[in-house]
Amino acid sequence: MTRTQISRLPEKQRLDREILDALLDSTRVGHFALVDAAGHPVVIPTAIVRDGDRVLAHGSTGSRWMRMLADGAPTCLAVTALDGLVVARSAFESSLHYRSAVLFGACAPIRADEKEAALDLITEALLPGRIPEIRRPTARELAATQVLALPIAEWSLKVSDDWPDDPPEDVAGDAWAGVVPIETGYAAPLRAPDLRPEVAVPSSVTQLGR
Amino acid sequence: MTRTQISRLPEKQRLDREILDALLDSTRVGHFALVDAAGHPVVIPTAIVRDGDRVLAHGSTGSRWMRMLADGAPTCLAVTALDGLVVARSAFESSLHYRSAVLFGACAPIRADEKEAALDLITEALLPGRIPEIRRPTARELAATQVLALPIAEWSLKVSDDWPDDPPEDVAGDAWAGVVPIETGYAAPLRAPDLRPEVAVPSSVTQLGR
Repeated sequence: MTRTQISRLPEKQRLDREILDALLDSTRVGHFALVDAAGHPVVIPTAIVRDGDRVLAHGSTGSRWMRMLADGAPTCLAVTALDGLVVARSAFESSLHYRSAVLFGACAPIRADEKEAALDLITEALLPGRIPEIRRPTARELAATQVLALPIAEWSLKVSDDWPDDPPEDVAGDAWAGVVPIETGYAAPLRAPDLRPEVAVPSSVTQLGR
Repeated sequence: MTRTQISRLPEKQRLDREILDALLDSTRVGHFALVDAAGHPVVIPTAIVRDGDRVLAHGSTGSRWMRMLADGAPTCLAVTALDGLVVARSAFESSLHYRSAVLFGACAPIRADEKEAALDLITEALLPGRIPEIRRPTARELAATQVLALPIAEWSLKVSDDWPDDPPEDVAGDAWAGVVPIETGYAAPLRAPDLRPEVAVPSSVTQLGR
């Protein structure tokens, strides 16, 4: 059994790269795991964005975890979306709708000449349309930021999207069954206290989540 | 430096147990990391619920990861909430509002006589008010379910909840700055295809997220 084979509930395994990409493209936080010097596991949550056949993560050049990842420590990246509550007629059959990807491998710093475009990609993933509204990064800012890439090579993907699967004696009973979708959205934007009154909410923010 | 000391952005570290509890109580999925037999890190996303001074997770007794956790393998549990976009006047200062907890330790199976109450707690955390609407678990269902507890003992917590921190030359410029809160909610419930037409949506579901 390899680590990308799913042993529990194998019917939920998906091999389609398109489904993986859709998950990576719509989820902004991933969890990287590392093994520390004592041999213990550590998890680092961080913003991620897909760039073709790799996942990018960025952080300060001063971060010790970024340095461990940059040095090629074996890692596992989990990207998880919670899509709904599966409300079955019993607690036992109740569960969650989710999409769960796990990628294995090692990160490497991207090339220096790729860094500015990669950071633009991260900015645009978090807030589409933001790049033309702001100044370009300075050389000092680029130098202070580490961008790592994890190849999309060894991965597994599990999708739970079924209706409740209750036994006939429960279906015949009085309990409700169904799915309650979970949605993530944005509330009204809050202006920074030091924002000059004449600066209007930009289109990147007004368009968010539309 | 211990593993619960935060090296990057130490001003974001929080030592208040109440803030940790609020995060654990409002977040339904956590990411457990383990070290596999080859010494590589693995991440397992799973539903979690706080029970006093411990975090409970449940799964099938047939799951190999549940078995590794049940056997006391060193683990790290990350619980992360994404609360908003920090829209600064530059990409460099833009970031996220988040609450991020990391717990270290080892899990142990809970006592057999605690299992039924623990599963009720998990059901109620996902869908408050559901327990009185459904039948009790059977002995077979209880036997098929493993419930693990991770003590809340060694943990660190990082909270990002500040306004953008732009330098004066950017504050003087034309770019907008603020925060866009991220909210998670529930869409209208979907009835299971095999639900009898006379079964109405129960109060647990109609009250969800109110």
